[in-house]
This record gives sequence, structure tokens and C-alpha cells, in this order.
Amino acid sequence: MELKMTLEELRVFLDREFPQVAEDFVLEDLGEMRIRVRLRVNERHLRPGGTVSGPSMFALADVSVYLATLAMIGPQALAVTTGCSIDFMRKPQAGADLIAEARILKLGRVLVVGDVLIHSRGVEAPVARASMTYSIPPAGQAG
Amino acid sequence: MELKMTLEELRVFLDREFPQVAEDFVLEDLGEMRIRVRLRVNERHLRPGGTVSGPSMFALADVSVYLATLAMIGPQALAVTTGCSIDFMRKPQAGADLIAEARILKLGRVLVVGDVLIHSRGVEAPVARASMTYSIPPAGQAG
Amino acid sequence: MELKMTLEELRVFLDREFPQVAEDFVLEDLGEMRIRVRLRVNERHLRPGGTVSGPSMFALADVSVYLATLAMIGPQALAVTTGCSIDFMRKPQAGADLIAEARILKLGRVLVVGDVLIHSRGVEAPVARASMTYSIPPAGQAG
Amino acid sequence: MELKMTLEELRVFLDREFPQVAEDFVLEDLGEMRIRVRLRVNERHLRPGGTVSGPSMFALADVSVYLATLAMIGPQALAVTTGCSIDFMRKPQAGADLIAEARILKLGRVLVVGDVLIHSRGVEAPVARASMTYSIPPAGQAG
Repeated sequence: MELKMTLEELRVFLDREFPQVAEDFVLEDLGEMRIRVRLRVNERHLRPGGTVSGPSMFALADVSVYLATLAMIGPQALAVTTGCSIDFMRKPQAGADLIAEARILKLGRVLVVGDVLIHSRGVEAPVARASMTYSIPPAGQAG
Repeated sequence: MELKMTLEELRVFLDREFPQVAEDFVLEDLGEMRIRVRLRVNERHLRPGGTVSGPSMFALADVSVYLATLAMIGPQALAVTTGCSIDFMRKPQAGADLIAEARILKLGRVLVVGDVLIHSRGVEAPVARASMTYSIPPAGQAG
Repeated sequence: MELKMTLEELRVFLDREFPQVAEDFVLEDLGEMRIRVRLRVNERHLRPGGTVSGPSMFALADVSVYLATLAMIGPQALAVTTGCSIDFMRKPQAGADLIAEARILKLGRVLVVGDVLIHSRGVEAPVARASMTYSIPPAGQAG
Repeated sequence: MELKMTLEELRVFLDREFPQVAEDFVLEDLGEMRIRVRLRVNERHLRPGGTVSGPSMFALADVSVYLATLAMIGPQALAVTTGCSIDFMRKPQAGADLIAEARILKLGRVLVVGDVLIHSRGVEAPVARASMTYSIPPAGQAG
């Protein structure tokens, strides 16, 4: 399958549609059915002890699979997150950015399923894994 | 089972341990194995279209079961979130706070499991459901 | 909302469509958006030590929300299970049947979400909780 | 890390501990933190239309991560399944066995997390994905 958006087009989309959070994310690499996104960890993402908060990791997983989906289907169809299951496995490295490696496992007309592994930059062992599901509104109902 | 902390003590704990987010949450009602928490929805929680973001709902579910757990076991044992599964079912009401009704289903020595229903204030139909799991570190290892 | 099927009609449907497993389940009580189903525990469901197997509990949760959905939308639309998240919390009572209390949290045109609490007959503390999601095929595409 | 059990030892363990279901599973390949297991699909696993049942796929995912865990920690510590989240993505190929590729993402002293991709033999696109969590009883309490 062909990509319908480039990394640069995803970047512009993110800046325009999600201005509150767009600057947190660096879109590092894009391929067919997959993307790598980095969370620029800052004060707002931290919990006592220097660990990255659960909601920040959830947001990273969600953005990653969402953008990988848009890259495949184009920006006109606004996917809606319908479900997430996430396991927190290790404490993130203090002071390190987080990297999400996301892939799409099913790209249906109605449902999209993806999964994500998150690790601290420079550390191989994953800190979290997530699976995400999205619903695609019927054509003509989007936006 | 007896509660080991009051709503007021949970409030003080939240303000001290999670100052970045404490003001977002209103602890409304506490009982044995359950709590009701309100998310004061503001700009930071919103997505385009006025809907509350997924990470904000995740944070509400997590805080709720976490505090219900602390109320039962006391503040010395710092529970760690190990897993979450969440279904987003409806669009939250624009401009309305979110209410989480959380209950603990299992309070083990090592593992805690709870679930949460979230609805918009004044609307009965739930916008999300979540189940949360926590690991309790062995006594003597906590913070 | 009105029920489109009675307990007796669900029973006939189950016997006809799922003859391999139908006799395992007793449909005990049906209401709007909810059902209670009992698993007749026998040799086939057991693991060493007399505990009921995980797959048997999964099957009970799945059948319960599935039937509660059919009761609301009628038998013509064949729902497909798209996701399940389940927490196993306690060891079931040896020799006791399992009871599932299922409710539907969202009955959409395309997606259905329900949750289930399972306990051993005669014991209040739940042995498992599950949330189930189903996709409803567009009218005209069913079976 | 070194494997503490061979494929042959896992085979013997499965036959002895789970005689009711052992013959359903072929242990195909074992490595550090991963295993490949095949479900020999037969009448008992099927639903109307020739599709493999959800509980059968759950059982395959559970057995796979369980055996991969035992291979790493040895047979003395009996892991207990505490949670599962599963997405059903495609209809399995009629008449084809199912292959599970499982890997362990976290092997802690207390908690184990693994994930699994399941596909029909000879078809690359996955029919299901699952994540599984296990609790390891403290040494001395097992069996």
C-alpha cells in the first residue's frame, strides 16, 4: 500500500489540529503501516521521582498509531480512538526522551488496530506496550 | 474493612505528591472500596471540537482508583500502575466537568484491580469505562 | 428501550447457532441492557487443582454480552467480537458454577461495549471482570 | 539469559499438567524470551461458518506466553494468569491451523508481561493480537 501523507504533511497536520500538544512530539520515521515518534520529555510530563506520567505515555501511544493511520488513509477521514490497553513494565529513564515504535496490524474500512512499544531513548528494554483501536467514520461524515 | 484515610487526608496527599495536577481533581465522595472524583475540565484538557482528550480521561481514571486504593491501605505503600484498559464510548459534553465513579474489585497484598465509569456532569450515559491494575511494593521497599 | 428477544428466544437461538457449547450455559435473568448467565461447570472447564480455566471464563463473558446485545437488537444482525480485556482476580470456588452479570454500556449502530463481573455461585467476591467490544455489520451484510 | 527448559521438557510438562488440552498444541520453536506454538484446529475449536472460536484463540495465546515464561524461569514456579487483552482482527482461514508467535516483554520477579500475534498457517496477516500478564508466586509458595 502507498503512503497518502509524508512525514512533513503529518507534521503540518499535527501543528494545525493539535496545537496544544504538537510541540511535544518529534516525528522521526515513517513507513508503510508504521511510524516512530519521540516524546520530548519536559516538566509537564514528569511525576515525583522524575518518572514520566502514565497519561503522557498514553498520549504518545495514541498520537503514534493515529498518525500512522492518517498516513495510510489520508487526512480527510478523522479516526476516533475507541479503545486502549496499556501495560506499564519499567520505570522510564530519568531525563530521557521516550521513543514509540508503532505499527498498524489491521487497517479496515471501519476499524483500525495498532500496537506500540515505548522505550527510553538509548535503552532497549521497553517501558510500556499499548494496543490502540480506532473507528473510522463513514465517508461524508468526517469533519 | 475500615478506611485508613479520609477524603481530607487524600486531598492533602494529592496536593503534596502530585502538585502539577492536583488542582484538576475534586474529591467528591469516598466510601469503602470506592470513590467519586470530578475532573475540572479546562483548556488544557480539550481537543479541537471541545471534547476532552483521551489522556485526560486516562488520568482521571488512574487518579481515582489510585486514591481509592490509598484510602484502604494507607499512604505509606506507594502503588504503581501496571496496566489499564479503557473504552471510549461517547463524546463528552462540551464544557461539562467529568465525573469518575471508581470501585476496587480486588485488594490483594500484591495486586489491586479496580474499574471506573466516567460520565459528563449532568449526563447519565457513560463516556468511558476503564479498568486499572496496580502493583503494591513489598513493605519496607516503598518510597 | 424495548427488548427484541425473550430469554426463551435467546435460548432457542443459542441451541441452534452454537450447539457445541449451548448446554454449558443457563440463561438466568434478562433485562434492558443486561443479562445473568450461569456456566454449568464440568470436567471440560477445569484445570489441575479444580479451578475453572481462563478460556472457560472468557467464553462465559463473551456469550453473556453477546446475548444481551442480541436481546436489544434482534437476531438478524450478527455481532462479531472485536476485543476483550479481562482481569482474573481470584481462584474460583472448586465445584461451584460461575455466574456472569453482564451489562451493555454502549449500544451503537456500529460498536457495542459491555462489561461483565463473574463470581462463583454463592460467593460474592468476583473471580474475574471483563470488558467486551463487538462490531455490528451494516444491515444487509449479516449472515 | 539462559533457557531453563527445552522444547521437549515443555512438551512433557504440558502433557502432564494439562492433559485435557495438551494434544491441541504443537510446540514448534523456542528461543530466549519467545516461542512459536501451533493450534491443531479441530471440530471442538470451530464456530458456525468454520471460524475458530474466541476462547480457542485466547487459550492459544495463554498457553504460548505461559510456556515461554516457564522456559525462562523453570517449572517449579507456577505462574498465574492475571490479565489478558485481545483484539480479534480478521476471520481465521477455514480449515487452517493457527500459529502463535509469542514474546516476553518483561520478566520480573513478580510480574510477567508478554504479547502474541496469531495468524492462520500460510497466511501472513494476523487474525488476533493479545497481551497477557502473569503473577509469579513468591518462592516457597508454589505448587
